[in-house]
Amino acid sequence: MIRVGIVGATGYGGAELIRLLAGHPQVRIANLYSSSSQGEPLDQVFPHVYDLGLPALSAIDAEHLSKENDVVFFATPAGVSAKLSPQVVELGGKVIDLSGDFRLESPAVYQEWYKKEAAPETWIKRAVYGLTEWNKEQVAGASLIANPGCYPTAALLALLPLAKSGWVAADSWIVDAKSGVSGAGRGVSLGVHYSEINESIHAYKVGSHQHTPEIEQEITRQSGAETTIQFTPHLVPMTRGILATAYGKLTNEVSQAQIQELYASAYADQLFVRIRPAGSHPRTKEVYGSNYCDIAVHVDERTGRVILLSVIDNVVKGAAGQAIHNMNVMFELPETMGLPLVPLFP
Amino acid sequence: MIRVGIVGATGYGGAELIRLLAGHPQVRIANLYSSSSQGEPLDQVFPHVYDLGLPALSAIDAEHLSKENDVVFFATPAGVSAKLSPQVVELGGKVIDLSGDFRLESPAVYQEWYKKEAAPETWIKRAVYGLTEWNKEQVAGASLIANPGCYPTAALLALLPLAKSGWVAADSWIVDAKSGVSGAGRGVSLGVHYSEINESIHAYKVGSHQHTPEIEQEITRQSGAETTIQFTPHLVPMTRGILATAYGKLTNEVSQAQIQELYASAYADQLFVRIRPAGSHPRTKEVYGSNYCDIAVHVDERTGRVILLSVIDNVVKGAAGQAIHNMNVMFELPETMGLPLVPLFP
Amino acid sequence: MIRVGIVGATGYGGAELIRLLAGHPQVRIANLYSSSSQGEPLDQVFPHVYDLGLPALSAIDAEHLSKENDVVFFATPAGVSAKLSPQVVELGGKVIDLSGDFRLESPAVYQEWYKKEAAPETWIKRAVYGLTEWNKEQVAGASLIANPGCYPTAALLALLPLAKSGWVAADSWIVDAKSGVSGAGRGVSLGVHYSEINESIHAYKVGSHQHTPEIEQEITRQSGAETTIQFTPHLVPMTRGILATAYGKLTNEVSQAQIQELYASAYADQLFVRIRPAGSHPRTKEVYGSNYCDIAVHVDERTGRVILLSVIDNVVKGAAGQAIHNMNVMFELPETMGLPLVPLFP
Amino acid sequence: MIRVGIVGATGYGGAELIRLLAGHPQVRIANLYSSSSQGEPLDQVFPHVYDLGLPALSAIDAEHLSKENDVVFFATPAGVSAKLSPQVVELGGKVIDLSGDFRLESPAVYQEWYKKEAAPETWIKRAVYGLTEWNKEQVAGASLIANPGCYPTAALLALLPLAKSGWVAADSWIVDAKSGVSGAGRGVSLGVHYSEINESIHAYKVGSHQHTPEIEQEITRQSGAETTIQFTPHLVPMTRGILATAYGKLTNEVSQAQIQELYASAYADQLFVRIRPAGSHPRTKEVYGSNYCDIAVHVDERTGRVILLSVIDNVVKGAAGQAIHNMNVMFELPETMGLPLVPLFP
Repeated sequence: MIRVGIVGATGYGGAELIRLLAGHPQVRIANLYSSSSQGEPLDQVFPHVYDLGLPALSAIDAEHLSKENDVVFFATPAGVSAKLSPQVVELGGKVIDLSGDFRLESPAVYQEWYKKEAAPETWIKRAVYGLTEWNKEQVAGASLIANPGCYPTAALLALLPLAKSGWVAADSWIVDAKSGVSGAGRGVSLGVHYSEINESIHAYKVGSHQHTPEIEQEITRQSGAETTIQFTPHLVPMTRGILATAYGKLTNEVSQAQIQELYASAYADQLFVRIRPAGSHPRTKEVYGSNYCDIAVHVDERTGRVILLSVIDNVVKGAAGQAIHNMNVMFELPETMGLPLVPLFP
Repeated sequence: MIRVGIVGATGYGGAELIRLLAGHPQVRIANLYSSSSQGEPLDQVFPHVYDLGLPALSAIDAEHLSKENDVVFFATPAGVSAKLSPQVVELGGKVIDLSGDFRLESPAVYQEWYKKEAAPETWIKRAVYGLTEWNKEQVAGASLIANPGCYPTAALLALLPLAKSGWVAADSWIVDAKSGVSGAGRGVSLGVHYSEINESIHAYKVGSHQHTPEIEQEITRQSGAETTIQFTPHLVPMTRGILATAYGKLTNEVSQAQIQELYASAYADQLFVRIRPAGSHPRTKEVYGSNYCDIAVHVDERTGRVILLSVIDNVVKGAAGQAIHNMNVMFELPETMGLPLVPLFP
Repeated sequence: MIRVGIVGATGYGGAELIRLLAGHPQVRIANLYSSSSQGEPLDQVFPHVYDLGLPALSAIDAEHLSKENDVVFFATPAGVSAKLSPQVVELGGKVIDLSGDFRLESPAVYQEWYKKEAAPETWIKRAVYGLTEWNKEQVAGASLIANPGCYPTAALLALLPLAKSGWVAADSWIVDAKSGVSGAGRGVSLGVHYSEINESIHAYKVGSHQHTPEIEQEITRQSGAETTIQFTPHLVPMTRGILATAYGKLTNEVSQAQIQELYASAYADQLFVRIRPAGSHPRTKEVYGSNYCDIAVHVDERTGRVILLSVIDNVVKGAAGQAIHNMNVMFELPETMGLPLVPLFP
Repeated sequence: MIRVGIVGATGYGGAELIRLLAGHPQVRIANLYSSSSQGEPLDQVFPHVYDLGLPALSAIDAEHLSKENDVVFFATPAGVSAKLSPQVVELGGKVIDLSGDFRLESPAVYQEWYKKEAAPETWIKRAVYGLTEWNKEQVAGASLIANPGCYPTAALLALLPLAKSGWVAADSWIVDAKSGVSGAGRGVSLGVHYSEINESIHAYKVGSHQHTPEIEQEITRQSGAETTIQFTPHLVPMTRGILATAYGKLTNEVSQAQIQELYASAYADQLFVRIRPAGSHPRTKEVYGSNYCDIAVHVDERTGRVILLSVIDNVVKGAAGQAIHNMNVMFELPETMGLPLVPLFP
């Protein structure tokens, strides 16, 4: 059994790791860590795990983290993993970091978008970007995984096949993304007050969301073409789910069937990406609670554009599920182990 | 492997049976039946199961049902199972019926509340009421299970220990229940139109809901005291979940601690009932997607009443999950097999 | 024109007072007061009033309050009005207090349920309980109005006619109430976090909500029979609306028609109470944004109980709308002035 | 008093016309028409108008429509007004048509996108497109108004100033719009079933929504530059509200301040358009129940694009409110009469 530790067990990412790992046949949840609630039973914080026999919350300590776990998940705010993960790995541990601390290659870019000091550059270089479908080999050998952000997961899985094809102008990509509120975490603020969010939708951080450079970096890396994207996130009155609607200008005449085929090939061996039939409009509800990313492709001949629709559950494929998928690859387990396949519907 | 057939696979109960049974290690989903969509792949009806390799929809036929499955689940409207289940059992099959057709002992009572002809009385007598925690032995030997209704599940698990204790006046019970909209099924009507339901709550069928006699019958059976309850269902703007708030008049002075102890004992060996600590106010979200029933007990000394709060996921514990629990008992499998323990949160 | 001042203009009650008073043909919103944001334009706090020409936020000062306004509304947390309102009235002002500070006749009861020091008893005695339909004469001559709580408004309008009739056992009343989240105010906490509230319902403060003694006091006062009620509030995933479902034990055989007639008479001259036809199940949405209280009566002959369904918009009839109704009565204006009659639907 | 008739009084557009017109000081709601429910009182269909003294539903008849009303509003499905409105106007009546029947200049384009026969071309030519802010003079003299669609209203008010400026490439416009469910009307279907919509978002009619040519036509007309737009509508789990997020490629370097100034000038004299300060992210909730369109402008220097955020209440500014605004202009009444200015919040 793999002994797993979770840092940041009192947030939503932590809760979802616990839900999925508790049902994983090769895992034992060995340790739960929290900076704020040491010693408390987890059900004080999360009554839904009442009576489930989970470990109480421990204080965070690098040595404990590395010795008492075979792998440590960080589901923490920006800045925490940057400091701790290098120590854990140095001491022989493995880390899967759900925060953004090791995703951006350039410390300067990190500092510009996150408004925080970046992790040490040597450690950024050692980290593997855990977009499982596109980096499986490196993930298999990694000891430090930078698990992708929720928006980048939905966007990249949709954009990468076309970005690599060269059929879309690299400077034309627009990603208009819509997210449920759980993506904002469990911290309280007027911005997540029920009465302010319900019966309303709004855009936020137009032109300045920190997931922008992450998407650009990975498209550039995979396609070889320097890419700038326009990214706009929106907050939707729902708890879970991300829909990314992406627009690209086709550089030559490509048919619906050709792009459909491109995507079918790109993901033929990938168990968690479903390319939906032509004409589909996937709903976030259709991947709820699952690790799927469902993608539909629409070629609009009238305008010469391709429109991509990509849906994920932000807490699963956009966070905990993808992290466990990476763990399965690192430990040479079947990829779907512990990741229930059928979404919760309705 | 147990070959399972599902009649009514295109409704919400069917969808949830599929979700849970697809992950059940001792089950193979052998056949899906539908009266309306034979021959169609299920993902035409439910895109969330796209690419999951489920069987296409078959026409309903008693012989096929009994021969090609080791157990058949009926997730059908009132009246369907009344006709088919006797044939299936006669031919040697086992049936777990999620509809109300075999729950009421008296055909006259059925006809009064359901406004339909009842199933044959001899068959009603052969059926076992599948409130698993309270009828486990009979369930183990049954070939026809009447799976409890969603409201009765939440109400009975809460009321039975006190009803048996004699500490509450039998004619004083009031059950004020609140349900998500999935309980109304997938059929379309103005009553489930999003714009009519959202940002609103209302009671319905005051004094006339067909789950009333089911609750009364089982309390009377278990307690020996002829019991009439007041039952009021409400529709809440959410998809899943039932909260039953129940009120009983205490006949003598009983303390919070005594009732707390009564409940702890009553459910000490039951894996899917969690008695929450004194002072708790369980939220339906805390059992979301799980087979738990969480119960809190409040003694109000000022008024001489006990208030019970009972929450379930109506689609799981109130339907598909409880049905699978019954199947596990019938086939001598571990009770929790295929029923993930950690609720989906948030 | 009546010069109106609003203390607590940055909360939801304040926002609704502004919405309605801005359209009132005999009112000028003269001053807005806030303890936290003096000098700021209101649209910094509430962007929905952008460009509406409202006064900026002023510091709270008793002399300013009494001199610069013809009437002052307090939409403040418990304790604020208790201190200020006596000063304002002493200086010649009129006050309509939406908080609970002057509602309970007994300071001891206030302290027990509110866990705060009560207002001076002489001032409590001078205050008039502003349940307009039942106290119209006293309201007309008052200089200090204790505007009823949201739950008491829905409960009392439903219970009073029957409570006065003597047809229901005074110790049998149970009020199971369901409220939208706006009732909790604009303050931030985990309890109003969108992801915690959405897709969930729960009871809270079972047996201990501070609106309990308010309901009991007014029923006792109006009926002359010492009355204890069981009151349970619930939080529903919606922003506005309260549904009170009330249960009473009939002491003798009374028919649906008799009670229907009782209610029709009781409210024959009241413009904001609509007694719905027998068999109705009013939805909170059907009074959304309006000052109506809609009531339906159900006699259940099987159980010998009456079930009352009462719906209001908690922010209007349960707060700002009722307060303006009281103002209209105090200033001898038409009762419906400034209170739009048609609810917002859907 | 203006006698108003409403055809299609049993839909959501009709309900909102009634709400607003009932409070309009110069209007009497004289007649309500319905093809399905003649003779019925309206509160059979809409309990929220119980006891409001509205006229019962009449059968639709062109002569009655023209003689008994000073103006007739059509809130009907495509095809109804195309046949009736010409007759009504011929008989001397005035018509404000909320359907799409007279919006598109070209019958061929109508037929292509609506899949229906178009209205007679001579009548299309007589109709005035009722985007009030941009066509006020023609509206004043019109007898047949084609009231704009909900999406076009949000999109056009945002795009027109920049489209006319020439600062954005005409072929670069992308409008990604998000709507509440009320826009789909009151008809029942799986597509508006609560359990299918709640906790989910999806795009629909990608590249094929019938509001696309309406937006293109009006931009082309106002700017003189032949314009093709990419338009994608989405369904959001809320009842009311539209947010249009629009993207345009700047053709030369224009600053945030310049565009901010452009919009301030364009709408300086318009009472229902609020240009929000730089950096704003308007929420649909901030215009709820009101006739406002709030617009924010974001220049992204990094990408050379402008992003426009435009929010309306689809049932008010996107339908009934704009229609009444047009009526006010036609009858030389103050523009804001009957259109309450303060949005409902929260």
